[in-house]
Amino acid sequence: MEGAAMGTPPIDLDGIRELGRELSNWGRWGDDDQLGTLNLITPQRVSAATRLVRRGARFALSIPADENGPHDVRTSGRFNPIHTMTRYRGDDPHGRLAEFRSAEDMVILGTHSSTHFDALSHLWYDDLLYNGVHHESALTAWGALHCSIQNLAEGVVSRGVLADLPRHLGTDFLPPGHPVRPADLDAVLDAAGIAPEPGDVLLLRTGTLPAQRRGADVGAGGSPGLTWECARWIRDHGIAAVCADNFAVEVLGPAGRGPRIPFHMLAIRDMGLLLGELFDFEGLAEDCTRDGRYECLFVAAPLNLPGGVGSPLNPLALK
Amino acid sequence: MEGAAMGTPPIDLDGIRELGRELSNWGRWGDDDQLGTLNLITPQRVSAATRLVRRGARFALSIPADENGPHDVRTSGRFNPIHTMTRYRGDDPHGRLAEFRSAEDMVILGTHSSTHFDALSHLWYDDLLYNGVHHESALTAWGALHCSIQNLAEGVVSRGVLADLPRHLGTDFLPPGHPVRPADLDAVLDAAGIAPEPGDVLLLRTGTLPAQRRGADVGAGGSPGLTWECARWIRDHGIAAVCADNFAVEVLGPAGRGPRIPFHMLAIRDMGLLLGELFDFEGLAEDCTRDGRYECLFVAAPLNLPGGVGSPLNPLALK
Amino acid sequence: MEGAAMGTPPIDLDGIRELGRELSNWGRWGDDDQLGTLNLITPQRVSAATRLVRRGARFALSIPADENGPHDVRTSGRFNPIHTMTRYRGDDPHGRLAEFRSAEDMVILGTHSSTHFDALSHLWYDDLLYNGVHHESALTAWGALHCSIQNLAEGVVSRGVLADLPRHLGTDFLPPGHPVRPADLDAVLDAAGIAPEPGDVLLLRTGTLPAQRRGADVGAGGSPGLTWECARWIRDHGIAAVCADNFAVEVLGPAGRGPRIPFHMLAIRDMGLLLGELFDFEGLAEDCTRDGRYECLFVAAPLNLPGGVGSPLNPLALK
Amino acid sequence: MEGAAMGTPPIDLDGIRELGRELSNWGRWGDDDQLGTLNLITPQRVSAATRLVRRGARFALSIPADENGPHDVRTSGRFNPIHTMTRYRGDDPHGRLAEFRSAEDMVILGTHSSTHFDALSHLWYDDLLYNGVHHESALTAWGALHCSIQNLAEGVVSRGVLADLPRHLGTDFLPPGHPVRPADLDAVLDAAGIAPEPGDVLLLRTGTLPAQRRGADVGAGGSPGLTWECARWIRDHGIAAVCADNFAVEVLGPAGRGPRIPFHMLAIRDMGLLLGELFDFEGLAEDCTRDGRYECLFVAAPLNLPGGVGSPLNPLALK
Repeated sequence: MEGAAMGTPPIDLDGIRELGRELSNWGRWGDDDQLGTLNLITPQRVSAATRLVRRGARFALSIPADENGPHDVRTSGRFNPIHTMTRYRGDDPHGRLAEFRSAEDMVILGTHSSTHFDALSHLWYDDLLYNGVHHESALTAWGALHCSIQNLAEGVVSRGVLADLPRHLGTDFLPPGHPVRPADLDAVLDAAGIAPEPGDVLLLRTGTLPAQRRGADVGAGGSPGLTWECARWIRDHGIAAVCADNFAVEVLGPAGRGPRIPFHMLAIRDMGLLLGELFDFEGLAEDCTRDGRYECLFVAAPLNLPGGVGSPLNPLALK
Repeated sequence: MEGAAMGTPPIDLDGIRELGRELSNWGRWGDDDQLGTLNLITPQRVSAATRLVRRGARFALSIPADENGPHDVRTSGRFNPIHTMTRYRGDDPHGRLAEFRSAEDMVILGTHSSTHFDALSHLWYDDLLYNGVHHESALTAWGALHCSIQNLAEGVVSRGVLADLPRHLGTDFLPPGHPVRPADLDAVLDAAGIAPEPGDVLLLRTGTLPAQRRGADVGAGGSPGLTWECARWIRDHGIAAVCADNFAVEVLGPAGRGPRIPFHMLAIRDMGLLLGELFDFEGLAEDCTRDGRYECLFVAAPLNLPGGVGSPLNPLALK
Repeated sequence: MEGAAMGTPPIDLDGIRELGRELSNWGRWGDDDQLGTLNLITPQRVSAATRLVRRGARFALSIPADENGPHDVRTSGRFNPIHTMTRYRGDDPHGRLAEFRSAEDMVILGTHSSTHFDALSHLWYDDLLYNGVHHESALTAWGALHCSIQNLAEGVVSRGVLADLPRHLGTDFLPPGHPVRPADLDAVLDAAGIAPEPGDVLLLRTGTLPAQRRGADVGAGGSPGLTWECARWIRDHGIAAVCADNFAVEVLGPAGRGPRIPFHMLAIRDMGLLLGELFDFEGLAEDCTRDGRYECLFVAAPLNLPGGVGSPLNPLALK
Repeated sequence: MEGAAMGTPPIDLDGIRELGRELSNWGRWGDDDQLGTLNLITPQRVSAATRLVRRGARFALSIPADENGPHDVRTSGRFNPIHTMTRYRGDDPHGRLAEFRSAEDMVILGTHSSTHFDALSHLWYDDLLYNGVHHESALTAWGALHCSIQNLAEGVVSRGVLADLPRHLGTDFLPPGHPVRPADLDAVLDAAGIAPEPGDVLLLRTGTLPAQRRGADVGAGGSPGLTWECARWIRDHGIAAVCADNFAVEVLGPAGRGPRIPFHMLAIRDMGLLLGELFDFEGLAEDCTRDGRYECLFVAAPLNLPGGVGSPLNPLALK
């Protein structure tokens, strides 16, 4: 295979703009909307999704938030989570030893440095964010005034459907730069017996980062993931959110001509689509393979962060 | 009412030790157990709890994790959450402006400084933590090796039952130092039509901190909350976790003779009981009053923090 | 005295622009200069200043960098320094106890939240920073590419001259909003027997914040300090830096018409003047009063922070 | 050369204890002393050191405090400095754009993660710190109550003498694990025309870490540095502080039998000797080679950190 993202059709900025207008959800849920495609998860969908739980099995979909995270601050500017004890011998708050002892700790977290949701204020182009708000009005040193992650404080609760691509392709993980195209999504979900429904959360397993954490040689080069074409597929199926176990949901090839992350530009800014990154589906995928059911109750509650443009997260799948 | 915690019977360290032995869950779920009373939430309980969702209504049970938090670092040593933008004009990672723009941010959080769970490694006495592990083996500068919050990565999912004490007493919030005793719990739950069951998460509403956030004068003095007697009540009913909208779940009176937080000592160390603090039940309580149903699906997933002795949290209630 | 900053003549944005052009040092030390008035401190001045040390007395000019700092993050967005132990019982790096024990800690510091220097990249107007560089070229998410504090890594070493205003006026500290005008500077230095020379560091004592730290009631309202007129006085005398024991060197009155910090605008952006804030001159001032010598060797080395727009600092005075 | 620290004579814990008693400075400057060997820098020494400045040349002795620091948090538990902009587009504190614009930033620093001094509370053995204080009294979650770095707030000002070992040996940097023994110190200083005097700050250049920062292959294995024998040499010459451009001042060989850092144990705990680490002497050393003068005015002011067990630092050398 020559070229890491072989098979990804090219798109330029004008192409993105045109497709963005076509797929746009601006105004669809009101001029003041800050939720985007999460509007597709109606209370009925929430309620129906809870009916998917049969065995009471729970799966954490997060990677450990620690210094072994996937970032190299020297190249990406994102540092891995820092966790430090601040008390562990057990002085009481005034240094005197009380009859009990206690321990405390703290975390320093880039909101995008471990498993996380991107707030819709995370990314834009042509000066405007989702729903047409100018970035200078939306984003201040004091946080996002528009589309902050706090809008999701009540959580994302819906049906999760697992697209387990490596399993479908009979491999442990997708190779570097492997593009996932709409037909691939159709095929993997079809084989899983899943017909996508409006409000679904698409759980995209590539297997790459989890394999890397386990010490596997996953190859150099870009991340496997969705091509920009999948934006229309997502729109057509009414998907409310896409969560993936890679860096950026979308395929990352070698830096070349054209915009580097066209899917992000269309998804976050034009469609108002919620993206989740650096997930871990290993445990869930194993269970799905075992019982042949590729759907679950998905529950993810970002921290209640006023002005946040993202949030660390520990999403759950229940079956 | 004279004395902030009037009506709280005294207990000394020997009394705690004796009661602790009686209520102890050490060994009950194995010598290596690190989950404590969460063992009471069986998969069947998880599954049954999801059946409580009827309308698909969602409630965030967290306070905003921001600088308006309840701590004064000068007196308590706990600082309020710090949220700061680290990029908002949109340079790409190498300072060059790309065709898109993005924003990023970070948070610095004491794990006990906003809505949180206490890991069972948070507190102990007589050198031993829950299940008899010595604090020097359990707690290191690198985090908790025993009973870290990471044991809860798969989340706490069970029935939540709301004990709305101020509503029951016809007030907006409990007065400073108001003790909540076993008979009070019986009365408020009985009036709500709730019969506690093993594995339940008790949601204790005092109304105090939320009222204070809204600007109300809640009086000086200690926090209202559970007396140490409630430990036995909790054991008898098989409660898996207690979450409250105050500082410490339990009543805090003026510093006086005797251990200051006897309930914590019994609950965390002897019973292995999960405690959640600084919750906000205002929205949920309003809804419960409206529809007369004081139970919900409770879902709370702490961050996936290796070695954490607590975790920031955005718990959800679904009805 | 009516009006906090009574006696401060008004100036509007156009007035600042005009005076800025007059006082401008752009190009004076080359088109690429990033040091501004620090160029006035020649090696000869450095050497001469060291001759001022007679007794070998040393004075720290910093306030403690701790949670008792002067900021209220809820109003100013600046949080006070956070210092936390990260190890104190003494595990070795792998949790095993070695034959020795050690303790470690960390600090989280806003670079302007305690005693600090402002880098010349800290403030600008009309889009251009000192020496005419556009703020979008100068400032990125990765730090300042122009006029970062790292340019001062070799330290500021020169003669310091103390303008002890409260002592001169026979009071403990200047009242709120008290304006210090050029004639006041002349008077106080003249009384101290100091003739300003090019390259001098002006140490401006108001006494206000130190008094507040000691618990004194310093009154409400703005900070006493320099009026914008002093910019010309500073230019005329070749002052290389001004350091003060208040928030902003300059006088802060009640928010009203006109630019709020005109002196900053002229000093940092047009003159390239180094400003130091939140200093503490109490010990030095006492000593100067005692021996009648109001000059010292001033040595201040900001941290070696690539891209920093300021730096925490512990400046020294030697006599 | 076989064995990284070839030539280092072995010492065991009992040997350290015995030598520690011999070299001990406990009580020498009073039972309450917290300064240790800094007492050797009398005001006369401070004053005399300022006379060493002839040309007004200044040298920063720090490495950049940034993410390119020498630590790998995954192995050492120490993270490199984090610097992040918190404002750079220039909103005023309430999000409204004022007539000026400003930028702000913050740093998160382990106090030992970049160029730093070790406070005397940083390390101990047999439960007692310098001057016989028990570690449980000295060190709390609130910081060091004994021998905190704040005791050094007035700075360290004395003669600095450069021991430029690689230049003396005609190499760019010392090889991994190269031991520096008392005779080596005598030889290098003698060749430099330096006779050590009480109160001197010994500046130990190995060249290793600076070479590594420049991209040189410095070899694997431990750090070159002082052997424990040098403790007596330092005591005999009345050296007040030792600063080095390596991790730990002393030689680090492969983990083997015996205490790993015997020099630290003797120096910090028994002698109360100030150690500075991760310095950079490259610029100073070049200058010394050029003019043949290996002495300078050394000025280093740690941050004013109450309770700190170390401090980031930007030390200066003046000639």
